[in-house]
Amino acid sequence: MERTGSNFAAARAPATVANVAVGFDVLGFPVDAVGDTVRVELMDGPTVLIDSIEDGGVAIPMDAAANTAGVALLGLIRTEGLAHGFRLRIRKGIPLSSGMGGSAASSVAALVAANALLETPLPPERLLPHALAGEELASGSPHGDNAAPCLYGGLVILRSTEPVEVVRLPVPRGLCVALVHPHRELDTRTSRGALPRDLPLRDYVAQSARLAAFVASCFMDDLALMSRSLEDVLVEPRRASLVPAFAAVKRAALKAGALGCSLSGSGPSVFALCDGIVSARRACEAMGSAWAAAGVSSDAWASPLAGGGARLVDWTPGTLA
Amino acid sequence: MERTGSNFAAARAPATVANVAVGFDVLGFPVDAVGDTVRVELMDGPTVLIDSIEDGGVAIPMDAAANTAGVALLGLIRTEGLAHGFRLRIRKGIPLSSGMGGSAASSVAALVAANALLETPLPPERLLPHALAGEELASGSPHGDNAAPCLYGGLVILRSTEPVEVVRLPVPRGLCVALVHPHRELDTRTSRGALPRDLPLRDYVAQSARLAAFVASCFMDDLALMSRSLEDVLVEPRRASLVPAFAAVKRAALKAGALGCSLSGSGPSVFALCDGIVSARRACEAMGSAWAAAGVSSDAWASPLAGGGARLVDWTPGTLA
Repeated sequence: MERTGSNFAAARAPATVANVAVGFDVLGFPVDAVGDTVRVELMDGPTVLIDSIEDGGVAIPMDAAANTAGVALLGLIRTEGLAHGFRLRIRKGIPLSSGMGGSAASSVAALVAANALLETPLPPERLLPHALAGEELASGSPHGDNAAPCLYGGLVILRSTEPVEVVRLPVPRGLCVALVHPHRELDTRTSRGALPRDLPLRDYVAQSARLAAFVASCFMDDLALMSRSLEDVLVEPRRASLVPAFAAVKRAALKAGALGCSLSGSGPSVFALCDGIVSARRACEAMGSAWAAAGVSSDAWASPLAGGGARLVDWTPGTLA
Repeated sequence: MERTGSNFAAARAPATVANVAVGFDVLGFPVDAVGDTVRVELMDGPTVLIDSIEDGGVAIPMDAAANTAGVALLGLIRTEGLAHGFRLRIRKGIPLSSGMGGSAASSVAALVAANALLETPLPPERLLPHALAGEELASGSPHGDNAAPCLYGGLVILRSTEPVEVVRLPVPRGLCVALVHPHRELDTRTSRGALPRDLPLRDYVAQSARLAAFVASCFMDDLALMSRSLEDVLVEPRRASLVPAFAAVKRAALKAGALGCSLSGSGPSVFALCDGIVSARRACEAMGSAWAAAGVSSDAWASPLAGGGARLVDWTPGTLA
């Protein structure tokens, strides 16, 4: 293999809040304060090796075919007919099974780093399908509402996965997120399993009206309309019991002034949208206190919505991303 | 009863296209070329009498409690505690059981005319619930995606019915509608009955992604995105067989250049959204020809999207609206 330039690259991909209350498998946005970093190095032979996983615990497989980032790069190699392969070093900054899009972040970071090593880097719509394969491996469903905002950045609608089409929504001025992670794991498969295959048309109608109004509120810069629209009648009621003290945590966020509050992705993390960073910090505190009262410790992040997606970074040995 | 001013008023309410492919029970817009007109006259006693129905055929009940406009006004009388009542004369311009919102139009026209006779006219959100009662009578379901655009005008999201909240969407420049009515009747109850109580979550996800993108396309003035979003995977496939030659008619509209094509409300009328009035006329012709080839005669209207809602008009004896 003859190549010029560096033979390795690293990328960091942010945590993401998927679903966003009313956009199940459709809406998502990144939370830049937390992320996974992956270092990718070219190697001979069209295969993938995982050299190390830092802070991933025992739950993340080192076998590339069973690892979300590994599967994503194996898909890239196969689809693009690459003659070479990749060795990976993965640093998990995103807590496992937290509902914060960790599997998507590892896949996307690996893809963005690997892409930088290709003779002709691919556009994001050619990368996203491989991240979806990683999501299918992780959760049993090729949902893209984590991977799309993780890769593209911004508050996005995933209009279609085949072909990939992402629509970026404008973010109202001052809109911030409070994201709180209780120290409990909730497997995405379990959480998806709480949803029946079929759901009542009546609930769809109520939910889709809110989704349509939420999208309109982004363009109209109307946080009051957004607040009225941020109520999940379809999915949250069927999953809430999987998250300890969810009702108390949500009540606390709303009482603290949040515009809306729901599960982040499949949970157990919970997000609240807030008008301004001060309000987001207040919501973080309120949610953390509610969990503490239930005997559950937690971490929290408050930040403006919605930052950029995955980006190339330097890889500093031994420093966690 | 002591009142100043006139003791009667008349209002005309337009036909409406509900659902709009991806917004089942949520999206709708008026088509001003066709409408119902109702003349309302004050009378003593809190009740409603229907004096005449022109062009309504035998299918429309003269008994106020069984008539959509009658039920709407009975609700108004009851809720507002009115001491007087109303006598109605109804002129049907909208074909019966056509999927063009005729029941909503009669209710809304009656409400707008009656409202003009109140000491203190009510805002539209106080009128809409009574139109929904009319819809429930007509179809078994208090859906508001005909009544809301009929009353408010414009391309609207009905975010909530309790309380009533309507969000008006911007209409992309040049967006026009082709609306074609085959000379067949399809009862709304039958068409709603074609939908199972529960529907697959997978179809809902695909549909809600399109709905979100459709709403975004209105704000972005992006007819290409709108076109990609106008595909009903949830409801249309389950109703299409109730409309003769639907597949051929839709194919003809798309081949003629329409951005998208689906059932108007519960059908059998079919609408197509088009870029410009010339394209809308072409789609009308193409759809009409496809039905003619199947032995079905039809009427067609091409017009810009989306005009105003119901309005007060003069009542000219003997002249059809």
